[in-house]
Amino acid sequence: MIFRQLFDSVSSTYTYVIASRRGGEALIIDPVLEKVDRYIQLVEQLDLKLVKAVDTHLHADHLTGLGALRDRTHCVTVMGERSKVDVVSMRLSEGDKLTIEGVALDVLYTPGHTDDSYSFLMQDRVFTGDTLLIRGTGRTDFQNGDARAQYDSIFNKLLRLPNDTMIFPAHDYKGETVSTIGEDRAFNPRLQVKSVDQYVDLMNKLNLPNPKMMDVAVPANMRVGLAQEDIARRGWAVSAAEALSLAAQPGIVLVDLRERGEREKPRATRKRIVFYCAFGERSAMAVQAAQDAGLASTAHIHGGIDAWKKAGGPLLR
Amino acid sequence: MIFRQLFDSVSSTYTYVIASRRGGEALIIDPVLEKVDRYIQLVEQLDLKLVKAVDTHLHADHLTGLGALRDRTHCVTVMGERSKVDVVSMRLSEGDKLTIEGVALDVLYTPGHTDDSYSFLMQDRVFTGDTLLIRGTGRTDFQNGDARAQYDSIFNKLLRLPNDTMIFPAHDYKGETVSTIGEDRAFNPRLQVKSVDQYVDLMNKLNLPNPKMMDVAVPANMRVGLAQEDIARRGWAVSAAEALSLAAQPGIVLVDLRERGEREKPRATRKRIVFYCAFGERSAMAVQAAQDAGLASTAHIHGGIDAWKKAGGPLLR
Repeated sequence: MIFRQLFDSVSSTYTYVIASRRGGEALIIDPVLEKVDRYIQLVEQLDLKLVKAVDTHLHADHLTGLGALRDRTHCVTVMGERSKVDVVSMRLSEGDKLTIEGVALDVLYTPGHTDDSYSFLMQDRVFTGDTLLIRGTGRTDFQNGDARAQYDSIFNKLLRLPNDTMIFPAHDYKGETVSTIGEDRAFNPRLQVKSVDQYVDLMNKLNLPNPKMMDVAVPANMRVGLAQEDIARRGWAVSAAEALSLAAQPGIVLVDLRERGEREKPRATRKRIVFYCAFGERSAMAVQAAQDAGLASTAHIHGGIDAWKKAGGPLLR
Repeated sequence: MIFRQLFDSVSSTYTYVIASRRGGEALIIDPVLEKVDRYIQLVEQLDLKLVKAVDTHLHADHLTGLGALRDRTHCVTVMGERSKVDVVSMRLSEGDKLTIEGVALDVLYTPGHTDDSYSFLMQDRVFTGDTLLIRGTGRTDFQNGDARAQYDSIFNKLLRLPNDTMIFPAHDYKGETVSTIGEDRAFNPRLQVKSVDQYVDLMNKLNLPNPKMMDVAVPANMRVGLAQEDIARRGWAVSAAEALSLAAQPGIVLVDLRERGEREKPRATRKRIVFYCAFGERSAMAVQAAQDAGLASTAHIHGGIDAWKKAGGPLLR
């Protein structure tokens, strides 16, 4: 297995690159925007293909690299279903698997630091985001943080993992790189509480200043799907409302990118192609690729099926 | 195996804690003085006994934790034989093994960054000090640095290790935690040279400012054996010259701490005990322990056999 832990010293963020073999597919967890060049270089040097980029939650202390990695590598962007991020290609829920070639991570919903915090379990190690840090826990005083939920996530999910499960968090501020579940259960000062109420009390008294980047990072990180705005500005997008009227026209072919079979349609038609997908992100990439290939009339549905549903569009399935 | 990589963000130093099992002996490589509390805490939390503390070379950018760790844990301090550090308990040469329970590291003499730079090879990983960094190499413009020697150390020793050997350096400034020999041979920009002359030329043109800590760290790090000065101030030391005259006296027992058998001598005698060892460090600790136990007449030979030899003392073996 290829496993790399990378540190951004500005935000003290840990980013992880995972692959099962050289030449294979890679996954990145919690990439930082300013480091995207290095991630892409490393992935190339290790002869990997980046196929998925995941954030454990909406970060308030750094700008996410998800959008930039998607634009530059065409990887799939992934977050938990509870995330308020505008557009990612894939949303995961507790019990789902986050998979690439040769690697499958179990998705755990671990709210508390935020209400969209997820952890990812890969056999002997767990990526805990800001839920469980080494000898610490993520603050719970903004972004719908909830100390009571965090207690539940930590004590009833993470601490039930085997003692020697390695903890790889999204941050460390003191120079630690890894811990284990057994070790932090015993020595994490925040976990030496007798009850959920004692934990809530401890967290509510922390009185921390807001992260320096918060006012910039939170709004920016909610708009991972920025590329769709660019596509719209170029005139290659139709709104969900427009799509409702186009759908019935004979000169139009709608291509559902969520279906492997549908992706062959464009080859066989001279009609105007309108791509769509769940949230409009993959279809924005498809329309860009089609335009690049000279198919000038192609467009996509801005915001995807999600926007279509909100516009009252009928669902055939 | 227990393996921990710890980072000091002030000097960007990586420190490594290694042990074969919980409850067993531990080794620490390149400890930083300011972090000694954390190392000791971690060693305790992992249920380990710190028995050896090693510096890969005399550091110019941070204060070594060797002396403080020795004073607080009674571990053995270790450096390469070429080091100008005043006193460490053990000096290693190329071809030696650095061992603790269940772990044996091969000692490689890899000069270039300094003339006392050593690397330590542990099966699938090598601790390269400042000789080989991730996508970089240690500067060669002070402390008897020598770009030509460094080329030889890197190309003719380190790069001959198997491609998948992991590189764990003493520093990283860009957020990398590990690389491999194969990867850095291919992608380390300093190693893409066609000849030793080209490497020397590259290194000589770097024109780096001196490390901020250099004027403090180098002199301080040369005096790891400070505890011996304290022992002497308390009147518990004899100089090598004094020892020459004492050695023949009937009321004196000399105890060579390098020999397991000799360590039993103090129990069986009422004579005045004078401990000695290779450099006086272990004997300083022994006299402290003896004094603590109420043996008021004990002393040791300041500077050990090394000072004895320099004073013209005869060697029986």
